[in-house]
Amino acid sequence: MKKKKVAVIGATGVAGQQFLASLPRHPYFEVTALAASERSAGKLYKDAITDAHGAFRWYCQEPLDPAYAKLKVQDAAHLDASKVDLVFTAVESDAAKELEPRYAKTTPVVSTASAFRYEPDVPIFIPGVNMEHDKLIAIQKKKRGWKGFVTPVPNCTTMGLAMTLKPIHEAFGVLQVIMTSMQACSGAGRSPGVIGLDIIDNVIPYIPKEEEKVEMETQKILGSIVGNRVAPAPFPVSATCTRVAVLEGHTEAVYVSMKKHATVDQVKKVLRDHGKEFIKLKFPSCPPHLIDVTDDPFRPQPRLDRDREGGMLTSVGRVRADHALPNGMKYMLVSHNTKMGAAKGGMLVAEYLVHKGHI
Amino acid sequence: MKKKKVAVIGATGVAGQQFLASLPRHPYFEVTALAASERSAGKLYKDAITDAHGAFRWYCQEPLDPAYAKLKVQDAAHLDASKVDLVFTAVESDAAKELEPRYAKTTPVVSTASAFRYEPDVPIFIPGVNMEHDKLIAIQKKKRGWKGFVTPVPNCTTMGLAMTLKPIHEAFGVLQVIMTSMQACSGAGRSPGVIGLDIIDNVIPYIPKEEEKVEMETQKILGSIVGNRVAPAPFPVSATCTRVAVLEGHTEAVYVSMKKHATVDQVKKVLRDHGKEFIKLKFPSCPPHLIDVTDDPFRPQPRLDRDREGGMLTSVGRVRADHALPNGMKYMLVSHNTKMGAAKGGMLVAEYLVHKGHI
Amino acid sequence: MKKKKVAVIGATGVAGQQFLASLPRHPYFEVTALAASERSAGKLYKDAITDAHGAFRWYCQEPLDPAYAKLKVQDAAHLDASKVDLVFTAVESDAAKELEPRYAKTTPVVSTASAFRYEPDVPIFIPGVNMEHDKLIAIQKKKRGWKGFVTPVPNCTTMGLAMTLKPIHEAFGVLQVIMTSMQACSGAGRSPGVIGLDIIDNVIPYIPKEEEKVEMETQKILGSIVGNRVAPAPFPVSATCTRVAVLEGHTEAVYVSMKKHATVDQVKKVLRDHGKEFIKLKFPSCPPHLIDVTDDPFRPQPRLDRDREGGMLTSVGRVRADHALPNGMKYMLVSHNTKMGAAKGGMLVAEYLVHKGHI
Amino acid sequence: MKKKKVAVIGATGVAGQQFLASLPRHPYFEVTALAASERSAGKLYKDAITDAHGAFRWYCQEPLDPAYAKLKVQDAAHLDASKVDLVFTAVESDAAKELEPRYAKTTPVVSTASAFRYEPDVPIFIPGVNMEHDKLIAIQKKKRGWKGFVTPVPNCTTMGLAMTLKPIHEAFGVLQVIMTSMQACSGAGRSPGVIGLDIIDNVIPYIPKEEEKVEMETQKILGSIVGNRVAPAPFPVSATCTRVAVLEGHTEAVYVSMKKHATVDQVKKVLRDHGKEFIKLKFPSCPPHLIDVTDDPFRPQPRLDRDREGGMLTSVGRVRADHALPNGMKYMLVSHNTKMGAAKGGMLVAEYLVHKGHI
Repeated sequence: MKKKKVAVIGATGVAGQQFLASLPRHPYFEVTALAASERSAGKLYKDAITDAHGAFRWYCQEPLDPAYAKLKVQDAAHLDASKVDLVFTAVESDAAKELEPRYAKTTPVVSTASAFRYEPDVPIFIPGVNMEHDKLIAIQKKKRGWKGFVTPVPNCTTMGLAMTLKPIHEAFGVLQVIMTSMQACSGAGRSPGVIGLDIIDNVIPYIPKEEEKVEMETQKILGSIVGNRVAPAPFPVSATCTRVAVLEGHTEAVYVSMKKHATVDQVKKVLRDHGKEFIKLKFPSCPPHLIDVTDDPFRPQPRLDRDREGGMLTSVGRVRADHALPNGMKYMLVSHNTKMGAAKGGMLVAEYLVHKGHI
Repeated sequence: MKKKKVAVIGATGVAGQQFLASLPRHPYFEVTALAASERSAGKLYKDAITDAHGAFRWYCQEPLDPAYAKLKVQDAAHLDASKVDLVFTAVESDAAKELEPRYAKTTPVVSTASAFRYEPDVPIFIPGVNMEHDKLIAIQKKKRGWKGFVTPVPNCTTMGLAMTLKPIHEAFGVLQVIMTSMQACSGAGRSPGVIGLDIIDNVIPYIPKEEEKVEMETQKILGSIVGNRVAPAPFPVSATCTRVAVLEGHTEAVYVSMKKHATVDQVKKVLRDHGKEFIKLKFPSCPPHLIDVTDDPFRPQPRLDRDREGGMLTSVGRVRADHALPNGMKYMLVSHNTKMGAAKGGMLVAEYLVHKGHI
Repeated sequence: MKKKKVAVIGATGVAGQQFLASLPRHPYFEVTALAASERSAGKLYKDAITDAHGAFRWYCQEPLDPAYAKLKVQDAAHLDASKVDLVFTAVESDAAKELEPRYAKTTPVVSTASAFRYEPDVPIFIPGVNMEHDKLIAIQKKKRGWKGFVTPVPNCTTMGLAMTLKPIHEAFGVLQVIMTSMQACSGAGRSPGVIGLDIIDNVIPYIPKEEEKVEMETQKILGSIVGNRVAPAPFPVSATCTRVAVLEGHTEAVYVSMKKHATVDQVKKVLRDHGKEFIKLKFPSCPPHLIDVTDDPFRPQPRLDRDREGGMLTSVGRVRADHALPNGMKYMLVSHNTKMGAAKGGMLVAEYLVHKGHI
Repeated sequence: MKKKKVAVIGATGVAGQQFLASLPRHPYFEVTALAASERSAGKLYKDAITDAHGAFRWYCQEPLDPAYAKLKVQDAAHLDASKVDLVFTAVESDAAKELEPRYAKTTPVVSTASAFRYEPDVPIFIPGVNMEHDKLIAIQKKKRGWKGFVTPVPNCTTMGLAMTLKPIHEAFGVLQVIMTSMQACSGAGRSPGVIGLDIIDNVIPYIPKEEEKVEMETQKILGSIVGNRVAPAPFPVSATCTRVAVLEGHTEAVYVSMKKHATVDQVKKVLRDHGKEFIKLKFPSCPPHLIDVTDDPFRPQPRLDRDREGGMLTSVGRVRADHALPNGMKYMLVSHNTKMGAAKGGMLVAEYLVHKGHI
């Protein structure tokens, strides 16, 4: 297969860097353009991420590919998207609202921004969960008169929740969902993100707009295509989203009420078995399991479990009956918010879209 | 009033120190005996808490009273409880199971240990919430043939939950409760408690036995006396208890389903109004409010709110409708686990029991 | 004494708030004006510190005085300083360079900014250490043609170092100083200050310009007036300044070489005795001791010792001989960087200047 | 080469696990025996590290080798060391004092314990720094009548200090050394190590015996063999050792006075060039560089730099002139305390000793 040309937008930010960290030697994609805000435009990438003190602001564990270091950063507002086969965008929602429709006129866009998530003709893909929502792509193209399209990944907190609810919903029918998150600081980025003075020895009980996102996105992702849109899943989702002194990896305490009674072992089994068909497709970014379930009551822990299988695994533990909800079950999960929950999850989505001929 | 003589058992530990920190110049009580394990017995208190390196292991913000510093520590196993009017115990559950019945033969015992909480004839008092359970005291004395009695305070995580559910239950009727806690390290004590290697950059998703305690105690505290025991409140409680990198102050995300519909403002009002009658009794350890409700969406935070009103206030925020539960409401709370949730809460209970003539 | 009218500039920031926290019921001062940047100008103070989410951004432990809450915030660029007797400024260095000379034309200025610290006619006062540098005030006024003057407090890291070196220098003569700091996040403020992603599970080995400030200021503060300027103390100071995951309270490891040999006990004694004459003046913000020396080898610790005596005490411990330097001595200190090391230290300086008739 | 049989003593502890993490597929060594205290003896290794709650207490990033999981743990007090070619010990100092001489009667012992470090006939090896101290091995064997010998690795804080002083001493001659450390919690182990209540929002200014160890060991490691013992390096070392809220990786601020003047660039060069001959021997555990020097002023940071080159690299930064000491230079370093500073450093020493025919 000839490699697809890709542009990474917002390349100097943390999320953009995560895209770059996943792309060296990628079998499907080669990076031919990097773009960021006007301030960085015209600089070599390595200079654009070096600050006035001489500090090198590359935030990924993987080293920066030397070839990318020497690419010239373009102004995102003036990028010619028609020259690439795919655009990865990792910018703030306001910028995405401007830029993504412009790129999508000619080119598919896989985005970490929330700007288009709630549009009826826009799918929010989670790998192995709702890939059949790709039917919306043709609808979106037609309705908007675009040659390309926009597919955002979900909010990082939605990722683990929807991933784990999917097999439970399929097997037993979900009736109600309650979820409390303990989210990592990296979810807020670095500009300035969560400041040390607020989070050391503390919990911040509120993340603006986060709960609404998680509630709406989970219903959309687990919904089904009806006509030319997604009919949200019929069960209500109630979230409380908090921030804790953790660097990476969101932890979630989930309570779910089911239509059919199921034992703890039955729930563990459907979680463990989830995604086997998707995994068989052997995409480059796909982990060997989508969900792991542990019997160690002290797991999952964000520090110990976030990086398992390259940060692409959702780790579940403490599956046990809940006696407050009808046919209730409760469990904990840890999901890597800036890997599966952001750019690397988007990479896996893009790989699937190539496989299906959308890119 | 002539001051009551009190003994503090487990005086060298953190919880025991919290009792001592509350007792200097107390209008009802004077400390006449300190006891701890055999290892400390015979030493002056100040020497018993000085370690081999010369470090002074006093863990309270309040200074150690010089008079207590010079008291000789007795062996808890041989304390003659009949020489005091009241015993405060702050020892591990296994020790409490041994010691407390021995003391209670002659003397009232107010305890932070869980050893007797689940006995049908033992009330678990929360100030301003279920003081009418003092009817059990006579039942307990009679049944066991004791002159004294044992009244434990609840688990520190139960404290804020039951405190806030009480006015909601009274006004609107509670049907179901779901609660996820983010608990402070101090709840685990210092021997060794939570180690730094486990909690820095992490969440620990499990605290052994904690969820069962919270579920049972909440039902018992909000239950009513039927015959010679407490009939548990009829609503189920489901808890997930986790540990976060916070020093003091438990944070809880609560979801409650109610019999009657209520608005957010109605729920805030009953929370704010709670405990007025109790507060009017003006006990020395009683704060000016039992519950405060804030409209700042970023509060309560454990670091900022735990010490309000001497650590005796339950701070509530983010009261909002929950759409997953019938007549659902959700909120966050912060409660000081080693003040209202331990010794200082026990002190306030003791003050009430003096007022009612039980001590 | 009729109270002096004071203006607080930068009143909405953390350092400005610390001034406000110290001023209610102050026997010498009454707040008659608050000023901040244009953005806050015209708002009531309480509204100026309430953000778009409804969060109330008051960062001090002390409650906001209701009278200040209702003051209208003025634009610092247009404040008429002649209407007050004293200006406290707590703004960034660039703003201070603009604003302070303007105010000083008519009015004394006590500042937390570094803008004027290195001017030869400007004293950097530390309470009880170099108050005789007030001779520079007349020189400064004359040279600049001002009715007022500017006196900055030192950098927060200089404070504890110069405070403890003073009595050692007087008694034994300092030859060389080496100091490594472990500084609290609050020293960097909140805009954005130190972000959680950088400081959790980490040490940041560099604070721009900090080491140079500490080295120069220490020499200036411990120098003597020669002619119309301060001759810096003749001993070299070498600093390494780092940031650690601590909220408040700077910790410093100090190594000092002395002209005369001294025993550990002699050094402890001069530290403990330091400042007695100054303390006798009984200024409202003066703590009962300027320096405390502990024999507990595990102290001082920033969390346990920063707030002693209202955050105005320098806590010293681990005084021991150093064998690498001639007549070497080494010790640790903790000093509260946003109390004695900022606004509250400035308040105490202002009280002295009133006493001496400069204000 | 036929693989050498090795036993790992203290295999259930963190340091012992680090040995096990380095041994799978090792080209020189195969694990044939695991030993621990009596409590674990007789259990399969995987069961010995599973606690009463079912939690699996394996603390390394690398997975446990399945072959080791099934080995039976022996009682360290009764291990027959003659059946193996090499013993790695990772036990407390008191246990090491008992066990190591017993093993050394027949077999070489590489140890992380301090028990024998200060014996005149015992070398403390740092890879690439003082391997010529292997002359002591024959002396030790002869003097003690052992067939084997004991070689401890240094204290984890000594490691980075001695490693970086070595090339400076060789090139310019060291006169005085002052070092302040900010040490990670892992250095204290897990039983209980540093508790969360002590280290969150705090610095602990004292680590018992640590400063003495660092001072003595650095002099011994950089000393030369004179007769049948090491003559300590002639320069004094003064240390202050503190604990900070960091999981892994010790940070040190070093000040050094040199005989000859050297520029910053000259010092950087000798640091960067250090160890080339040793590296050329291509031992399995040897990193491609022993020391790296960065020009980014914000580096090294423990979280970002500790794991570089498998945790075997000493990262240096902020090299700059020091004006307090004659021909002074100062710098910061980060060294991984539980990798190069413990078991993995011991592994590299063992590899060298095989190469030289000592094992």
